[in-house]
Amino acid sequence: MTEIEIGRGKRGRRAYSFDDIAVVPSRRTRDPEEVSVAWQIDAYHFDLPVIGAPMDSVMSPETAIAFGRLGGLPVLDLEGLWTRYEDPAPLLAEIAALGPESATSRMQEIYAEEIKPELISARLKQIRDADITVAGALSPQRTQEHWKTVVDAGVDLFVIRGTTVSAEHVSGRAEPLNLKRFIYELDVPVIVGGAASYTAALHLMRTGAAGVLVGFGGGAAHTTRLTLGIHAPMASAIADVAAARRDYMDESGGRYVHVIADGGMGRSGEIIKAVACGADAVMLGAALARATEAPGRGYHWGPEAHHQQLPRGERVAVGALGSLEEILLGPGRVADGTTNLIGALKRAMATTGYSDLKEFQRVEVVVAPYQRS
Amino acid sequence: MTEIEIGRGKRGRRAYSFDDIAVVPSRRTRDPEEVSVAWQIDAYHFDLPVIGAPMDSVMSPETAIAFGRLGGLPVLDLEGLWTRYEDPAPLLAEIAALGPESATSRMQEIYAEEIKPELISARLKQIRDADITVAGALSPQRTQEHWKTVVDAGVDLFVIRGTTVSAEHVSGRAEPLNLKRFIYELDVPVIVGGAASYTAALHLMRTGAAGVLVGFGGGAAHTTRLTLGIHAPMASAIADVAAARRDYMDESGGRYVHVIADGGMGRSGEIIKAVACGADAVMLGAALARATEAPGRGYHWGPEAHHQQLPRGERVAVGALGSLEEILLGPGRVADGTTNLIGALKRAMATTGYSDLKEFQRVEVVVAPYQRS
Amino acid sequence: MTEIEIGRGKRGRRAYSFDDIAVVPSRRTRDPEEVSVAWQIDAYHFDLPVIGAPMDSVMSPETAIAFGRLGGLPVLDLEGLWTRYEDPAPLLAEIAALGPESATSRMQEIYAEEIKPELISARLKQIRDADITVAGALSPQRTQEHWKTVVDAGVDLFVIRGTTVSAEHVSGRAEPLNLKRFIYELDVPVIVGGAASYTAALHLMRTGAAGVLVGFGGGAAHTTRLTLGIHAPMASAIADVAAARRDYMDESGGRYVHVIADGGMGRSGEIIKAVACGADAVMLGAALARATEAPGRGYHWGPEAHHQQLPRGERVAVGALGSLEEILLGPGRVADGTTNLIGALKRAMATTGYSDLKEFQRVEVVVAPYQRS
Amino acid sequence: MTEIEIGRGKRGRRAYSFDDIAVVPSRRTRDPEEVSVAWQIDAYHFDLPVIGAPMDSVMSPETAIAFGRLGGLPVLDLEGLWTRYEDPAPLLAEIAALGPESATSRMQEIYAEEIKPELISARLKQIRDADITVAGALSPQRTQEHWKTVVDAGVDLFVIRGTTVSAEHVSGRAEPLNLKRFIYELDVPVIVGGAASYTAALHLMRTGAAGVLVGFGGGAAHTTRLTLGIHAPMASAIADVAAARRDYMDESGGRYVHVIADGGMGRSGEIIKAVACGADAVMLGAALARATEAPGRGYHWGPEAHHQQLPRGERVAVGALGSLEEILLGPGRVADGTTNLIGALKRAMATTGYSDLKEFQRVEVVVAPYQRS
Repeated sequence: MTEIEIGRGKRGRRAYSFDDIAVVPSRRTRDPEEVSVAWQIDAYHFDLPVIGAPMDSVMSPETAIAFGRLGGLPVLDLEGLWTRYEDPAPLLAEIAALGPESATSRMQEIYAEEIKPELISARLKQIRDADITVAGALSPQRTQEHWKTVVDAGVDLFVIRGTTVSAEHVSGRAEPLNLKRFIYELDVPVIVGGAASYTAALHLMRTGAAGVLVGFGGGAAHTTRLTLGIHAPMASAIADVAAARRDYMDESGGRYVHVIADGGMGRSGEIIKAVACGADAVMLGAALARATEAPGRGYHWGPEAHHQQLPRGERVAVGALGSLEEILLGPGRVADGTTNLIGALKRAMATTGYSDLKEFQRVEVVVAPYQRS
Repeated sequence: MTEIEIGRGKRGRRAYSFDDIAVVPSRRTRDPEEVSVAWQIDAYHFDLPVIGAPMDSVMSPETAIAFGRLGGLPVLDLEGLWTRYEDPAPLLAEIAALGPESATSRMQEIYAEEIKPELISARLKQIRDADITVAGALSPQRTQEHWKTVVDAGVDLFVIRGTTVSAEHVSGRAEPLNLKRFIYELDVPVIVGGAASYTAALHLMRTGAAGVLVGFGGGAAHTTRLTLGIHAPMASAIADVAAARRDYMDESGGRYVHVIADGGMGRSGEIIKAVACGADAVMLGAALARATEAPGRGYHWGPEAHHQQLPRGERVAVGALGSLEEILLGPGRVADGTTNLIGALKRAMATTGYSDLKEFQRVEVVVAPYQRS
Repeated sequence: MTEIEIGRGKRGRRAYSFDDIAVVPSRRTRDPEEVSVAWQIDAYHFDLPVIGAPMDSVMSPETAIAFGRLGGLPVLDLEGLWTRYEDPAPLLAEIAALGPESATSRMQEIYAEEIKPELISARLKQIRDADITVAGALSPQRTQEHWKTVVDAGVDLFVIRGTTVSAEHVSGRAEPLNLKRFIYELDVPVIVGGAASYTAALHLMRTGAAGVLVGFGGGAAHTTRLTLGIHAPMASAIADVAAARRDYMDESGGRYVHVIADGGMGRSGEIIKAVACGADAVMLGAALARATEAPGRGYHWGPEAHHQQLPRGERVAVGALGSLEEILLGPGRVADGTTNLIGALKRAMATTGYSDLKEFQRVEVVVAPYQRS
Repeated sequence: MTEIEIGRGKRGRRAYSFDDIAVVPSRRTRDPEEVSVAWQIDAYHFDLPVIGAPMDSVMSPETAIAFGRLGGLPVLDLEGLWTRYEDPAPLLAEIAALGPESATSRMQEIYAEEIKPELISARLKQIRDADITVAGALSPQRTQEHWKTVVDAGVDLFVIRGTTVSAEHVSGRAEPLNLKRFIYELDVPVIVGGAASYTAALHLMRTGAAGVLVGFGGGAAHTTRLTLGIHAPMASAIADVAAARRDYMDESGGRYVHVIADGGMGRSGEIIKAVACGADAVMLGAALARATEAPGRGYHWGPEAHHQQLPRGERVAVGALGSLEEILLGPGRVADGTTNLIGALKRAMATTGYSDLKEFQRVEVVVAPYQRS
């Protein structure tokens, strides 16, 4: 760990983003057809190591089903429009039509509507009926209120997702969520995060989580670096958490906790770098919001964009580039890393001579900051 | 201290700006409601660790009063329009209406008017009558001429502010201001600066100052890097001065001199990084000039902008984004770090698990230069 | 080798691009007229150390002949339009006229046409009849299918070129090309690549290749950094492969394998830096596609641009700046490094006091990242 | 000297430009009025440490006289329009009126005209008659041909200026200029350069030169980094040559050779950094070409712009900002470092507590790359 002296009274590590690094080919190559990108977490197997981010612009019950059929793991946001409104379609259309000056304040109004437990059950049922793996996400703040509804609705995987989720939350007002006890008592495997450092992730792993989301506001729709001064460059964050996985595996006598990169992967090159730094799978937002089927209709936003007091994200235009299938599996019709994400991942693995994701985590990388021209 | 060889005949330290660093979350989180941002200097307590910069575009007697009622410490520029003109309102309107090509030369004319001691007394009385903490600022060049007027008018805190203020000024023309004797003999606590290095700040602390302003032309309205080649990257400067505070506390047997970041904090993220580097409080210019009540009417400038021989700053358009209260306390209506500055500070402290400002000075930071896209 | 810790679980080297370095003059200077840029590989001598890239926008049989007469080594792409179509002229005109939105998909269609062995023979014969050195390129995937046609047509140099070519390709479907046996059994000297690291290049050298192409998608028409996350900054790649050349020369008892920089040299400054880092010769694409005679008619693209599943390059507009002779030998009419490439190389060598290319590989360079303004 | 491994086969130093560094204030300040910027070389004293660059856009006989009267040292280009044409005024007007596409080729034509010795004599006489220090510049290529004309015309200082001038030029065609013998035999003190490294400068100092120009194509009108790949970042180059000055003073038993920064100082901040790195004086081109009296009429170019075979510079628009006096001595009317250059230098020295140029060479600097926003 290289520590840099910022000034006499403060030191800090140098941290690297995806743009700072690149994968390098080595002495062996391989046929892309012989590369496997399969991923398994707990009892669930997926053809693609891709999780659909629980965001209203990305996952509706319909796109969740389509995405699951293509081989990924969809996660529905259980605090989004689908559990606040019986029919969110008109609101999604309205959001896509908002002018930039009024987008934030109108979204604050739309999301002020209450969450309805019966809608949580109905939405999850719709996905389960399609016979794909069912996963829903709550924020840590609302997990205690709604978890029972979620479990009763029959999820296969439970996701607790916030910008930062810690194993040790301090609150004087109420009994905070005790993650360790909660996960221990729950029958369902839990994916939890974001975490952005070795220590934070190690503590989350000790709660018994099946997977840890790595990230903090790195995505296209976040502005946390401007608003909070907080930033966790993804390459360093993933490499740190991957080290925590290894150390925790030793400490726990063999429990393998999945490292899931979450944020900042808008193009296939970034997905590839995420795995190269140690990710087992990736959670995609903007990259999937570009699908013609996506509920965002060419726009993308996260829960930070409609925070009632302190919005820390924006509704961003991402366009509608092609079908979900083209975006994931191709064929590519543009050369900018936005379509055939999986084809690109396989090609990168083949070009560097690796045959599965676990092996590819060892690929050589260089530090070579990207000069935007 | 890492020294870099620039060439065989010259070495220099690597210094870091706010854009070069970021705060990182750790293993603990906390409710934002349980975070305190209170600040106390000498006998004066403030709900907010924010000082209004003594600049004509930021602080009028009216905005000083409003800002004080919201919990900050306003400082009036005693060499600005309010002490040169009985009624500066028409001039402020004129400045806001100037075209870019004539702004500098017209401001040079407007500020050529004499300072009137009776106006110093009147403006300070107006603030004192509103029952808030009274503070006024002079430049070191004019402190000897006007300090008695200021003290007689009854200030609580005396601010001596220049781009660089040293404890040891050399002048052959007249007896220069002896800061140490001046501060010793004054009954009023003094905040003095800018200083931008460990040594400069340590010498200022030894004069008996209650607080040291850290900065040198880092603000939005300065061009000192272009004109003078001088630049003090704020993250390094604050961390250096924070180390001087610690060493001086030891040397003086426990005197705590406040470190006040001054410049370059146009967004909440930068305020947060300033505290993370060791600041006890922040002095804000452009960030407050964006208030609809601000005297600058959407523009911001400092004394450098109207220097008669060598202008080293510009009148910059900052817009009028919302009320002073919205800017400080929210609710935020945009997501770019310009509104709800205090909400963002509390959120950042909560997200990283800290409960007061002094603790938050220890938060982990990384070096991760910001790529503007 | 400086290794950087990206995060606790991952390390990587710092790698440098051409933009990161610059050549520095030293204590000696020389007349440009006394500098030699001659280059010899195997039995073939060239006045210029320049190879025309086997790309349809750069080399047609006609431009190959013109380029050979000017002193360079032209290489025809034997998988391009000239071996797929009897008369590719209308297709080249159509490609130059395509709108940006349809360019990729139309090129995918055009290049879906079969390669015709009789056209391989005919095109190579046309070049051989002009009495210049004959070279043709195949991808490793198609070498087994077409090599005999190529050899029978009578090439002097055989080029096997892909984005990454390794000495050890793993394939479960068919017997992959065994480079070592292939090169050993072939009568013709082989240039093979790209390779981008010491190890990859050393293994290619051990196959018996006469030259190794250094690069991976560094060219103007590639988007591999975006799509695959793969990037081999050229300055570091060349310096690495030059070290492999030295070590292999020792290991083999004196066999000198030529290091040929391939990609990212759009301007004379980059050609000069390539040699400064250790290249014996350069393979140029975009720089030659700017010739008025170039088949691309002001556009440039590589095989990645029309990949059927995963396009990883684009058709880029490069303009038509001057004749091939002006671009190579001047006189220059613009000052941006796009004309009189060889004059610039000679001038740089003279200014730094070197008289031939091999010596110039030792010139002093500095690391000084280029700030695009 | 920190050496960086670019790749296994190549190492290089990290070099720094003016944009990479900044001056930092320290614990002492001073009145600007008490700062001296006087400069003396050989028997010649100057109020300002500024040399007017021998370029047609900067120095005509008239501006040379005006500049000398303001306190600087003007140098006339003896290979420019003034010695090629009896009346260059119409040509200067034509150059200022050229469109960008034809500027280079038309300038190539204009400068193809022969140099006339009688005009050399006449131009220098005009300057001498005005009773200011007379200096003229030749390139090393033409020094042997014209030096006698120049000396006979009665120059006080002789300038030999090229992009790179070495003490050891190798030429097989004719006897090259032997700088050491030439300078030894000449009665007039010689300023020679550019040099950009410790060794190159040390060798030039050993020729007996009174001053060494530091630079290589760093100016606004050069494109050598693009065309030749050569670049000598100025901060490092000056610091290196300043070390050569110190070592040569020791070696020679006390001869002080002046270090003159030449190039890349378009704003006052860069002049200040040049002195901070060790320069005794600065040679200015673009900064003076901005004067309303400048012969370039709002444009600036150097001899590289009209090279017959390999143009390596461009005619750049610099505008006409104010009188030569305003640019040098103020008062400033803009805040971007283009006017009152000397006022800014004095202010920077005062702010950091230094009283003369030699002392100011020791000022503290930091490495803090400038992010252009």
